[in-house]
Amino acid sequence: MITRFDKLQTELPHPDHPSPNSAAAVQELLGGKFGELSTFMNYTFQSFNFRGRSEMRPFYDLIGNIAAEEFGHIELVSYAINLLLTGTTERGDDPAETPLASAVDARNTYHFMASGQQALPMDSQGNFWTGANVFSSGNLKLDLLHNFFLECGARANKIRVYEMVDDPTAREMVGFLLVRGGVHIVAYAKALEKLSGVAVGKLLPIPDISNKRFPEAKKHEAKGLHQILYRMSPNDYKEISKIWSGTHPEDGSALRVVDGPPEGAPVPEHPEEPQLTSPIGPDGIDKGILQEMATRIFGKS
Amino acid sequence: MITRFDKLQTELPHPDHPSPNSAAAVQELLGGKFGELSTFMNYTFQSFNFRGRSEMRPFYDLIGNIAAEEFGHIELVSYAINLLLTGTTERGDDPAETPLASAVDARNTYHFMASGQQALPMDSQGNFWTGANVFSSGNLKLDLLHNFFLECGARANKIRVYEMVDDPTAREMVGFLLVRGGVHIVAYAKALEKLSGVAVGKLLPIPDISNKRFPEAKKHEAKGLHQILYRMSPNDYKEISKIWSGTHPEDGSALRVVDGPPEGAPVPEHPEEPQLTSPIGPDGIDKGILQEMATRIFGKS
Amino acid sequence: MITRFDKLQTELPHPDHPSPNSAAAVQELLGGKFGELSTFMNYTFQSFNFRGRSEMRPFYDLIGNIAAEEFGHIELVSYAINLLLTGTTERGDDPAETPLASAVDARNTYHFMASGQQALPMDSQGNFWTGANVFSSGNLKLDLLHNFFLECGARANKIRVYEMVDDPTAREMVGFLLVRGGVHIVAYAKALEKLSGVAVGKLLPIPDISNKRFPEAKKHEAKGLHQILYRMSPNDYKEISKIWSGTHPEDGSALRVVDGPPEGAPVPEHPEEPQLTSPIGPDGIDKGILQEMATRIFGKS
Amino acid sequence: MITRFDKLQTELPHPDHPSPNSAAAVQELLGGKFGELSTFMNYTFQSFNFRGRSEMRPFYDLIGNIAAEEFGHIELVSYAINLLLTGTTERGDDPAETPLASAVDARNTYHFMASGQQALPMDSQGNFWTGANVFSSGNLKLDLLHNFFLECGARANKIRVYEMVDDPTAREMVGFLLVRGGVHIVAYAKALEKLSGVAVGKLLPIPDISNKRFPEAKKHEAKGLHQILYRMSPNDYKEISKIWSGTHPEDGSALRVVDGPPEGAPVPEHPEEPQLTSPIGPDGIDKGILQEMATRIFGKS
Amino acid sequence: MITRFDKLQTELPHPDHPSPNSAAAVQELLGGKFGELSTFMNYTFQSFNFRGRSEMRPFYDLIGNIAAEEFGHIELVSYAINLLLTGTTERGDDPAETPLASAVDARNTYHFMASGQQALPMDSQGNFWTGANVFSSGNLKLDLLHNFFLECGARANKIRVYEMVDDPTAREMVGFLLVRGGVHIVAYAKALEKLSGVAVGKLLPIPDISNKRFPEAKKHEAKGLHQILYRMSPNDYKEISKIWSGTHPEDGSALRVVDGPPEGAPVPEHPEEPQLTSPIGPDGIDKGILQEMATRIFGKS
Amino acid sequence: MITRFDKLQTELPHPDHPSPNSAAAVQELLGGKFGELSTFMNYTFQSFNFRGRSEMRPFYDLIGNIAAEEFGHIELVSYAINLLLTGTTERGDDPAETPLASAVDARNTYHFMASGQQALPMDSQGNFWTGANVFSSGNLKLDLLHNFFLECGARANKIRVYEMVDDPTAREMVGFLLVRGGVHIVAYAKALEKLSGVAVGKLLPIPDISNKRFPEAKKHEAKGLHQILYRMSPNDYKEISKIWSGTHPEDGSALRVVDGPPEGAPVPEHPEEPQLTSPIGPDGIDKGILQEMATRIFGKS
Repeated sequence: MITRFDKLQTELPHPDHPSPNSAAAVQELLGGKFGELSTFMNYTFQSFNFRGRSEMRPFYDLIGNIAAEEFGHIELVSYAINLLLTGTTERGDDPAETPLASAVDARNTYHFMASGQQALPMDSQGNFWTGANVFSSGNLKLDLLHNFFLECGARANKIRVYEMVDDPTAREMVGFLLVRGGVHIVAYAKALEKLSGVAVGKLLPIPDISNKRFPEAKKHEAKGLHQILYRMSPNDYKEISKIWSGTHPEDGSALRVVDGPPEGAPVPEHPEEPQLTSPIGPDGIDKGILQEMATRIFGKS
Repeated sequence: MITRFDKLQTELPHPDHPSPNSAAAVQELLGGKFGELSTFMNYTFQSFNFRGRSEMRPFYDLIGNIAAEEFGHIELVSYAINLLLTGTTERGDDPAETPLASAVDARNTYHFMASGQQALPMDSQGNFWTGANVFSSGNLKLDLLHNFFLECGARANKIRVYEMVDDPTAREMVGFLLVRGGVHIVAYAKALEKLSGVAVGKLLPIPDISNKRFPEAKKHEAKGLHQILYRMSPNDYKEISKIWSGTHPEDGSALRVVDGPPEGAPVPEHPEEPQLTSPIGPDGIDKGILQEMATRIFGKS
Repeated sequence: MITRFDKLQTELPHPDHPSPNSAAAVQELLGGKFGELSTFMNYTFQSFNFRGRSEMRPFYDLIGNIAAEEFGHIELVSYAINLLLTGTTERGDDPAETPLASAVDARNTYHFMASGQQALPMDSQGNFWTGANVFSSGNLKLDLLHNFFLECGARANKIRVYEMVDDPTAREMVGFLLVRGGVHIVAYAKALEKLSGVAVGKLLPIPDISNKRFPEAKKHEAKGLHQILYRMSPNDYKEISKIWSGTHPEDGSALRVVDGPPEGAPVPEHPEEPQLTSPIGPDGIDKGILQEMATRIFGKS
Repeated sequence: MITRFDKLQTELPHPDHPSPNSAAAVQELLGGKFGELSTFMNYTFQSFNFRGRSEMRPFYDLIGNIAAEEFGHIELVSYAINLLLTGTTERGDDPAETPLASAVDARNTYHFMASGQQALPMDSQGNFWTGANVFSSGNLKLDLLHNFFLECGARANKIRVYEMVDDPTAREMVGFLLVRGGVHIVAYAKALEKLSGVAVGKLLPIPDISNKRFPEAKKHEAKGLHQILYRMSPNDYKEISKIWSGTHPEDGSALRVVDGPPEGAPVPEHPEEPQLTSPIGPDGIDKGILQEMATRIFGKS
Repeated sequence: MITRFDKLQTELPHPDHPSPNSAAAVQELLGGKFGELSTFMNYTFQSFNFRGRSEMRPFYDLIGNIAAEEFGHIELVSYAINLLLTGTTERGDDPAETPLASAVDARNTYHFMASGQQALPMDSQGNFWTGANVFSSGNLKLDLLHNFFLECGARANKIRVYEMVDDPTAREMVGFLLVRGGVHIVAYAKALEKLSGVAVGKLLPIPDISNKRFPEAKKHEAKGLHQILYRMSPNDYKEISKIWSGTHPEDGSALRVVDGPPEGAPVPEHPEEPQLTSPIGPDGIDKGILQEMATRIFGKS
Repeated sequence: MITRFDKLQTELPHPDHPSPNSAAAVQELLGGKFGELSTFMNYTFQSFNFRGRSEMRPFYDLIGNIAAEEFGHIELVSYAINLLLTGTTERGDDPAETPLASAVDARNTYHFMASGQQALPMDSQGNFWTGANVFSSGNLKLDLLHNFFLECGARANKIRVYEMVDDPTAREMVGFLLVRGGVHIVAYAKALEKLSGVAVGKLLPIPDISNKRFPEAKKHEAKGLHQILYRMSPNDYKEISKIWSGTHPEDGSALRVVDGPPEGAPVPEHPEEPQLTSPIGPDGIDKGILQEMATRIFGKS
């Protein structure tokens, strides 16, 4: 079970230059084979499926707890996409004026047909995320090795999206996730190390470039965000500290568990796109109409 | 963001007759087009994507809040599958004794190859869940109509799985979900009614059979579980009560919001399957060995 | 069984500005999840599969009859695509002159590789239509609810394509289909109303914008085309009038059944594209050569 | 455009032994890569897309006309599947009695979950038909070669289904389609022969076994059904006789065009399956209730 | 470029008990996500794509050389499947005798429809292999980590198939591939060790069970087959010995490169299946007829 | 089994104008339905699966031998793609400078995310190759007819890519493959002719345009390359000469078998792309660093 907070893990600035193709590229980090849906679903299923958890509880707690943080990551990427898409077509109430004309040349037309300029669980080519991306063999060493590899692959994609899109919304999101994903890489390296005695963490960084080369990641690491594993539960997953301890393999700083989720930031509002009848339309273009409608339905708030 | 509880929404009994083919059938409720992954992901994305939420907050709160309950549903179905699969092959430490012989004729071999007799995000034919199952048009009335239809389709599948599998684990899970899914059907009907004035709830039940015909659902409805919408958040989603109010369209009972998630029940333990090297093996068949290994790694607990 | 007429349901003008990307966008209305192939195949299979038809004949007749009209819709969308694609590359007989150079940047290269600048059963991202889009639960109320939702989703896509592409070929096609699809929306609303007593039609329009806002649809509604359900059969499907009767939920006008298909319009000719060896080539660029070839094969006509 | 007749191309007997797995096998002939949906959709799209039709009209007419017959073939296969599935689970009004128990071991659970024991556009493994099965290159010789190959592949599958399933419903359907599909093989061979002068028909039969070895096909050939190409249109497709003429390449009999579709046979009724709530239920098990409901809705008939 | 030998890498015995469902299970090792097609194609593409090969030649040589051995693995698994399928239906020349009756209940009907009781590039659920299984990031450390993980995943599947199927054909094939796949696991571990200094090989075995527990693998290891990396080229890939050297991480034995492929064994003959018209039929059931046909075509041999 | 040569079948020039979209188009010839992976895998599986090979050895040898040449074709297309992609983004060591900015508008983002500007087994729309493209019915005549059709379809795609991309790298590759693919078309035509007596070769060319119209193909044909079938094996596949003999159906020249593969040409080097961390990076931008690293690992070479 979960409870939900109407917050983002970190604050996202508004974009300097909204762009459908930037949004299309960022989709890889949401619904790609190595996107956040993959990490979220892999660890979620591995936690449901974990055998022998009474003896191996620290591993169970680690996987289940990281899963919970990943929900916040699909949320963060989705909001970045939505911010990049908002306002990219012509607002108006007359369909004959071809308000979506610019969408004809966009790389991903689903953003304008299947959604109202919003995120969908697909990748940068518009191919939908599939459950085939979930690996859950039941063998602990193999599942941990998979997770370590998955996080490294996810890191490679984050780096490449960062290098493709210079909008501050995208970069703030990627910078933050490089750090938090980096925590998960180290966590799985530590878990493998516990299980086997092999210093897997010494393979890092994979790919061979430090987070500190990315300004939006560096600023978070300067504050020690890469040293923290949040315990995303009021009362459970307490044995993560048996794995998340000691020092960071890249900079030697001390690792620590923080109880509870990060404080978070407000979720951005997404304004109406009346030409997409979102949420109603097209007469909703005049903000007052939507408010009047709400008052009629729910009374004065 | 979410926080996570290591609990199930309701208690699941152990199976009377574990069966790979029953587990294969139940997968439809997890990873089928109308499975719980679909409801979870639809409402999750619709909540990320909601436009005009300041005016239309009750709808935003409703969708986002139901999403949070759905996580508990994919968990519940997954545990039911795992319980039905556990112990269905021969435990042992000698691969030459063909311990998985019975799996050759099972309908879904992924349960024995890709997982360690565990749930995966796929349907009853072993086809993986796909993000193409997510609908998020941005138009509120259309999204609500979709959700109402989706829940009715999900209900049809639950009924059919109930009629296929008489194991108490499966039926307890389906009975509970018929009631909770029923709450979501009514919630979307109420939302459409608020938006349009049409008494959509009078279409129910769809399909034309009452929950009260299913003993494992009836017992929960007798306690009023179908009247409750849980508010799955410490501080957010408070305006759901502007939609979830009045009476139930099928039995006229009074609807009410309960703050916080249901109390929940302990998650079942999944024992080792050493022939599947799950979590280690095959030498882990002797329970002591796994315990010794844990002690070696983490010290005495 | 069917018989076929070499005619279109309505006349299509030639495009002002043929464009591969406009054609790519229009593909969503053909092979998208909510495209005409989906409506055609859904109702076709539901009619094959209908149980209890002797008692429920008006519903059976309605679904089977609408299926027949939908064939004309996949035809109409396909011709629009073909018109938009014809002539978009350089005609000529020398491949070394790179006649297809412009296709390298087109959004959908299948139009130039897998077809000869022609329609294929795919959507606006070049993903192929799949039978997974067919819903046929066997429960009448659920199937009708599905069909009502499907038509509303199809309408949303039509509106968005209209807003993306201002070419008169595309708009004439979309305008006509908004009206005819609108008839199907109302038909399924009426059917649900008959079955349940709920005034489903009052939910319309979904999305919240009237057909009358689209000049190419408005002109057809002005002539009453939205009031007519064609009976697409010489002798069958006569009981559709038990459902298609009364008044239109949006403008209150009287509904009526017309026996037989609409008069229709001539199908456009598609000229040769010799650089694509279509139908032969590249020597067929000189019209006379194709004629000579025909005469050699079939004699003087 | 089409008009539709509520008839089957040939009469289907009721099954001797309904069987989910036989129905699952027959699905290959409906939604398999070489199934009737593939032939129907290939020729339909090729006819929409045909370039140079004024010169090459006999080829255009041939393809478009065969497309129309194929609709009747998807219908025939679907009805055979429905007949094989009807009654294969326990009829009743109490879900707790596990009426669908037998479906747990059926090869294709979609028949019991996604449909009400009815046909869906999928193949014998439950994989859905895809538009990727449509070939429409625009080059006439290549398209005809494809169609010739497609029909031979379809014939191979028909033969194998015949050899798997001995139920009279299935065999009557396959026998008839071997003959009609055989007509289409010869038609495309003749077309290629016209175009190129190569006696393609001499390659037949492919695979190397005569239709006359199949009793249910032989009886139709004895009546000359393999010599007839139906002209499936009131006024169009008249130039098919420029290709469909001369003698049959296998037995030398004279080929002829028949104007209009075959007379056809009544479509079988599909009885209620109340445990599947199809069309309503489960209280509809008593036939009178469904009739009463109909009377309430539509009045006395 | 390659040259090909009409030989298998090891000898396969004829099956004791041919079985469609055993063959269906073995397909996972051919066309599954972790099957031999995946290893073959991953390393093949990584070798085409390798950047910086003049400096990093030992890695380039290693990957390209292992790719070449993998071709022999898809061959070996395919032959095992073909042997398990041959003779599983009734041989005969009369289709009316339902020679394929037993196939109706087989798990994978493609073996009888799409192939002539033969292997296809699909997995144990009949889902086709996809190029999405190829990983080629361009980053050497990440690609090597992937390959190490891929081989461990492949090993898990081999172990499970071994435990499902006790037929000597299957077990001989799996035993041999456990050893050769084990060589590839160690090779990628050594490569990672060279690159990073981390003793990745100490993680082995993954999953935690020794090859020596499998009699058909143990016998090959007893002869040292796990110590040998074949150089699958007349003149190239010579620098593999810079990586394949030192000792085996599991048993400490000395590793060595052998120039040229293994000696190999004759490929088994697959007899005719005339009821499947394979290679011709059904009159080919009499061996003499096929021979006569051959003589007529090619003259006396 | 195979052995591998580190060579290309023909020499490829470096591109005049590297271009992501040209590379994206060329992918159709690699991973498209009619791409080289399809021909390679079709003939490979048909050779594994061939029944009755002792009598029908010339056919077995032909299919198995052509398979071996096809490996060289996937290699050649992959190298062409890699050459077209190399250098298309900004080389550098600072990710904040947005070195991949140009990739945001590229048609295929997988080239920049999932690979390091390198080929993947996908088509021109970025859809991955699938094993469903393999046809292996077991019936010899049908399989040969398929192969003949497949090669003609592949030829159509080659022609269209030639007409889309005028870069010399692409055209040299396509010109060569038009000739070698042309050999395979004729080979299958000859095989069908042997089997049936029908002069299938007289259908050629399909599509109706001669290879001699393509300068880069013409030059190879001028040297007789279209007359040669290479025997791609040291000792096997010797009976191909029983089919590959007589004259070429298009120009009447004499056909001949050449023992052994073509001489081949050196494989191009792919330089580092440090901004993609390929093979390491980004510090590897300075060539010396990669060399130093190699020296540290392997010592002086």
